Amino acid sequence: MAPVSDLPEHWEARGKPLTLFRRFEFARYGETRTFLDALAALSEARQRHPQNINFGATYVNVTIEATGEALDASDCEFARAIDALIAPGKA
Amino acid sequence: MAPVSDLPEHWEARGKPLTLFRRFEFARYGETRTFLDALAALSEARQRHPQNINFGATYVNVTIEATGEALDASDCEFARAIDALIAPGKA
Repeated sequence: MAPVSDLPEHWEARGKPLTLFRRFEFARYGETRTFLDALAALSEARQRHPQNINFGATYVNVTIEATGEALDASDCEFARAIDALIAPGKA
Repeated sequence: MAPVSDLPEHWEARGKPLTLFRRFEFARYGETRTFLDALAALSEARQRHPQNINFGATYVNVTIEATGEALDASDCEFARAIDALIAPGKA
């Protein structure tokens, strides 16, 4: 797909090859766990996994790598699907 | 508890306050997922969570923080309980 110029809101483009990075913060471990479980289910359903997930009790840092040489619409769509796992008020 | 001088095998002491760090590697994502799920269950059962878990498709880096000012036997025992989640041949 063609590279995109409009990145998903909240996400930051990093590195070369490009990756998309976002930090999610939660009030308590139970919410973090719920998000992690939903993210695992999403990844397995799509057969696409973030390059890296880094988490502690109340935060999850997610890094998505570009599938091609540049970030494209499918990468951004994957990021938005991850965003959709959290409650709308927290996006 | 008193500080320990005999750290668990495979684990490296890092930082100040001290933490215990170990990298686990797996042949495929399914094994990584099984380990992550077992680690989450162990953490919830004990109400003790690693300070940080950093993972990709085939690796999991685990950092445990000392409960007191230095690593003690309870920290090492937690590390060994995590080790026990993987097959003996991989320890």
